[in-house]
This record gives sequence, structure tokens and C-alpha cells, in this order.
Amino acid sequence: SIRNGIRSRELFVLTYGALVAQLCKDYEKDEDVNKYLDRMGYDIGIRLVEDFLARSAVKKCRSYSETVDMIAQVAFKMYLGITPSVSRSNTTENEFFLILENNPLVDFVEELPAGRTSLCYCNILCGVIRGALEMVHLAAEVNFIQDRLKGDDFTEIGITFLKKLEDKKHKRNK
Amino acid sequence: SIRNGIRSRELFVLTYGALVAQLCKDYEKDEDVNKYLDRMGYDIGIRLVEDFLARSAVKKCRSYSETVDMIAQVAFKMYLGITPSVSRSNTTENEFFLILENNPLVDFVEELPAGRTSLCYCNILCGVIRGALEMVHLAAEVNFIQDRLKGDDFTEIGITFLKKLEDKKHKRNK
Repeated sequence: SIRNGIRSRELFVLTYGALVAQLCKDYEKDEDVNKYLDRMGYDIGIRLVEDFLARSAVKKCRSYSETVDMIAQVAFKMYLGITPSVSRSNTTENEFFLILENNPLVDFVEELPAGRTSLCYCNILCGVIRGALEMVHLAAEVNFIQDRLKGDDFTEIGITFLKKLEDKKHKRNK
Repeated sequence: SIRNGIRSRELFVLTYGALVAQLCKDYEKDEDVNKYLDRMGYDIGIRLVEDFLARSAVKKCRSYSETVDMIAQVAFKMYLGITPSVSRSNTTENEFFLILENNPLVDFVEELPAGRTSLCYCNILCGVIRGALEMVHLAAEVNFIQDRLKGDDFTEIGITFLKKLEDKKHKRNK
């Protein structure tokens, strides 16, 4: 009778809502809440990546493009049950976009809290991606470009790879 | 290659850890953190119960005992992927115990944060149960009796049903 297996996602989504509400109480400025969510996400990402690599039988990505496809098709699917579509910047080679048609993180959210017009409600996702990428030696900036909660048509996350971090140990051994 | 389907549980568990850490920053007294986690859980429970009733094809429980079995075997399984065993108090008819051999909520936690010896780390679970029960017109006290994080052999949640809430609308119609 339980059709969809474990439904921890709902528990996650509701707990996340409680966390955002708590931070909005603690910090007056939306920017501070955004920063905090990003930092928490980062801490989660650097731990979650181990789980990800252990569970998914993924191979090493050979390009930024492969990496972003992996995030969208394997990681988002695995942890949030959705598969964002991916597009690439026409102007900047290292910039990619994840487009979320559905965003389970706002399943129970109608709109941004009153007076919180600059809040990036889902900013934890940016931090998670950033933290996870860093653990596989990829530095990136990750930001919300569009957000349905702010009246945009869809939700879009931008990922800009900065450069390949040097593998110092490897270099030393040469 | 993804063996276990959606793994939002890990995301939930790590986010919950971040939430507890935040509350420990905000509140000096363990009792205040415990109270806060319980209240957040309550808010989550009163919303999660709708999802639960919609997803599980459960029938109306006819006894406290059936209700507790439902919590252990259907709800815990559905949201946390575990099935606590249930026992009943020898002395008090309305008191039951959920015994958690494994507790995924502490998967990434080695021990209580320094100086937080009275923290009920998983107290959100008590709140969730309490809130969900209230929505089906059952008032209950829900507390941790034992906690592995505090050195106990296993983790145990006590549920004491207070009384059946009166269905006032129903009574009025009589």
C-alpha cells in the first residue's frame, strides 16, 4: 500500500522550512539568511558527496559539461527525485544552468515570508552543489538566477566553474 | 546503478544536524533547544499527517495499540526507512514504547555536542508524533526515555495517550 517507497523527502522539505523560518527569526537581513543557508549547504555538500560517490556508480567526469549532467541527472534525481534540465551559456564557456520545472523544496511554500523579498529560499541547494564540487576539486560559484517564488517563470540555478583546483599531491609526486 | 532509489533521507539527516547546531548556537539551555525541536516537530507533524493519510492506505485505528503499531510499522518505515519495535507498559494501560535499534537521524553524529549533556538531539521526532496524533484527535505525551547518544543501550521513545479528544462537531449534531 506504500506506493513510493521511503518518503523522507517530505520530512526533509518540512524540516528545511522550519530551518528557514528559524533563520528569518535570527537574522534581520535577507542577505544574511541567504549567506547562512549557503554556508549550511556547503557543510552538507562536503559530507553528502561521500554518500553520493559511494551509492552511485559514477565514473570520473572528464569535462564541466559531464559534471553538470551528473549533478542534474544523478545527484538531483537521487536526493530530490527530480531531474533539472541543463543548458549552457552562449557567452561564457564555464557557465551552466540547471532549470527546475518542479522544485520539491517549495512544495509546502506558497510565497516568500512577508517582507522577505530578497530571500533565496532554496539557497541551501547552491551551497550543497558548491561544497560537493569542491570535494572533487572543482571550484565553482553557484547562485539562483531565477526563482518561481519571486515571480519568475521557472527556477534556475547558475553554476560557473572557476578553474580546476590543482592536485598538489599529484604535482609533488611528479 | 542507483540501488536504493531516492536518498532524501541523507539530505534530511544532514539538514537536521545543521538545524540542531543552529539552535545550540541560539539557545544556551539544552531544555530550550529540546523545547524548540519539539515545537518544530509538532508543526511538521500536523502537516506531515496529511501526506501520510494520502499516501498510506491505512484504515482508522480502533485502539491505542493499533495506532502505535501504525506509527512504528507504517509511518517510521515510510519517512525514515526503519521499523521500531513496540512494547507496552506493564503498569499503565495508555503507555507504549518505540524501541529504535537503528536511528538514521544520528547517522552522522558521533556524540552530543560538547557541554550539551541534556540535549535530546532527536527531539523533533517526539514533536512530529505528537502533532500527527493530535490531527487524528489523539492527545499524547511523547518523550525520549532512553537515548544511545547519552550512553543508553538503545533509543526509546515513550508515548502516553492522555484521552480521546472529543469530536465536538459530532457531539453537537447528536
